[in-house]
Amino acid sequence: MSQDITDNTVCDGNRAFEAASRRQSLPLYYLGPQGSFTHQAAVCASRMLASLSENITPMPESTIPKVMAHVRDGEGWGVIAWENNVEGYVVPNLDMMIDADDVVGFAHAGVDVVFDAFVPQRSAKRGVALREATAHPHGLAQCQRFIARHHLTLMPATSNAAACRDVRDGQVALGPSICGELYHLDTLEHHVQDYHGARTEFLVLARRDDVPSLMAQVKADGNSEFETIIAFIPLSTGPGVLANLLDVLRDAGLNMTSFISRPIKGHAGTYSFVAAVDAAPWQPHFRSVLTEVVEHGDWVKTLAVYPRRERPNPPVNEWMLPQGGVCFDPHAIPEAWDSSVDAARELLW
Amino acid sequence: MSQDITDNTVCDGNRAFEAASRRQSLPLYYLGPQGSFTHQAAVCASRMLASLSENITPMPESTIPKVMAHVRDGEGWGVIAWENNVEGYVVPNLDMMIDADDVVGFAHAGVDVVFDAFVPQRSAKRGVALREATAHPHGLAQCQRFIARHHLTLMPATSNAAACRDVRDGQVALGPSICGELYHLDTLEHHVQDYHGARTEFLVLARRDDVPSLMAQVKADGNSEFETIIAFIPLSTGPGVLANLLDVLRDAGLNMTSFISRPIKGHAGTYSFVAAVDAAPWQPHFRSVLTEVVEHGDWVKTLAVYPRRERPNPPVNEWMLPQGGVCFDPHAIPEAWDSSVDAARELLW
Repeated sequence: MSQDITDNTVCDGNRAFEAASRRQSLPLYYLGPQGSFTHQAAVCASRMLASLSENITPMPESTIPKVMAHVRDGEGWGVIAWENNVEGYVVPNLDMMIDADDVVGFAHAGVDVVFDAFVPQRSAKRGVALREATAHPHGLAQCQRFIARHHLTLMPATSNAAACRDVRDGQVALGPSICGELYHLDTLEHHVQDYHGARTEFLVLARRDDVPSLMAQVKADGNSEFETIIAFIPLSTGPGVLANLLDVLRDAGLNMTSFISRPIKGHAGTYSFVAAVDAAPWQPHFRSVLTEVVEHGDWVKTLAVYPRRERPNPPVNEWMLPQGGVCFDPHAIPEAWDSSVDAARELLW
Repeated sequence: MSQDITDNTVCDGNRAFEAASRRQSLPLYYLGPQGSFTHQAAVCASRMLASLSENITPMPESTIPKVMAHVRDGEGWGVIAWENNVEGYVVPNLDMMIDADDVVGFAHAGVDVVFDAFVPQRSAKRGVALREATAHPHGLAQCQRFIARHHLTLMPATSNAAACRDVRDGQVALGPSICGELYHLDTLEHHVQDYHGARTEFLVLARRDDVPSLMAQVKADGNSEFETIIAFIPLSTGPGVLANLLDVLRDAGLNMTSFISRPIKGHAGTYSFVAAVDAAPWQPHFRSVLTEVVEHGDWVKTLAVYPRRERPNPPVNEWMLPQGGVCFDPHAIPEAWDSSVDAARELLW
């Protein structure tokens, strides 16, 4: 059923793939149930990557380790949530990719976190009064204004998809737009979430040994700009470990777009670092950086490479700055700013 | 009711505060409902900080912005979730602290993520058969083995606390240990979560202008080791911005224990950085670093200072490393490792 769903899907990704050459059909595993935002991302990715494989079929799995195992064993591709602009990295998935056995991200897809309100078919025509809102508690929490406007009571469900699947007369189910077609529901209202602008980025995963040929197809299609997600573990510890590592990236002129430290799985007090870099690992300036880091004795692994996304790069203006804090204009007339009340107060000197 | 709960609370924090001098009573605001892990952290913090104020009373609030507003307006202290060893930073709270108006963290408390299984009082004696497990869907997901062992069906609730408050005969409610006393329930079994070792760290918040005197009390009590959470926004952008910033910390011998980049709220493509540093901002070596960064024109704010936690600092051993990746022994015999299959495969050259 899943591959039929093509309308109302709010997503975008690497258009690059669309013109690439075709291959055999394959399953695209995602964390179920059907009708989740991850399912929506899988549908989006299967359409976006249609030129790499003719018949990509989203397939729900019960756990992320099972998704990873399918990919590792060459049984298909996978899709996992990676980052959300409000919640940050999906850290358990990030930790799993750091530790992944032969699984690499080779594409990305973004899905807007948008809720639609669904009712059973023809219930509006039948004049059914609405009494309850049903969704995962997160979904209920994200649509509070809609719920208040309709004076609905809360009926929590194990997932938004389960709420949509099981919705009864008198209930409004809140879920991703994909659920309407999936469960044959009427859409009462589109985009009923309180906060507009939330977005989740997903990685599409393939077996590590398959990625070079996938990348060859993408490059043959004319793509020359890539983004890489790379993990480092410095084997020395103490002050400056991270600064020394980043000096190497700076000196090569590499631009980082995100950075996070994580303890090595299960070992509090140890550190791995994950960076997103505006370059492909095979490009000479990035390759020489990786060579230098490895020769220094650090552990390094490429977690994902995909065509570079369009990103804004605005200058930071005064009005963007958070409240409080200290910001000194170096071009202003010199003064004893560091002994001022503001600095002591904002920095807790 | 809350301040009576003292048993079964799995937490620890800055023992330092316990011997400090006493002050007047005050409310400690937390995100409700009563019976959440945040409530448990508030109870833990109120006991831990008892020597700073005689009668700290945990008070539930409906939203985190309301918690922050109480603290900013000097109406009491607050407690917010900050970091979890499995999920990473609680990013919405981190973003809120970066942008906070006159609110600073001055203490931390840690709570183990431990679920107990509760039933209505005397229901076991009455021979009531168990049919359903009720909790927030996250709670249900975290206790799957217990649920399977008792052959229970799932009954999702809006929160673990609501599940415990509303538990009926035939149901098992899963929640923090604090719920047993709070809702007068019998504990069927302790520690029924699948994963042992999850832990959430909370920050205790006070009004910025009150923190110097709180810190004076803590220092007077003999504490000399502190940890600081600091936010930076470089006003220049491009390659090396972060490396340049960290060089200053390295050259001062400062040790960082965590690091994360975040877009400035609402401005994709801009960057703020949040670091945890093993030093207090008033210590000369850290103060001179902050001075240098501010004089460079960057925006800086101290988000929290608290007595340093005991932390392990193990060396990274071979067996701790994730699967795959490249790790070269610089003392090994020289070889053309960078053209080897392994490097090309692991780094995607």
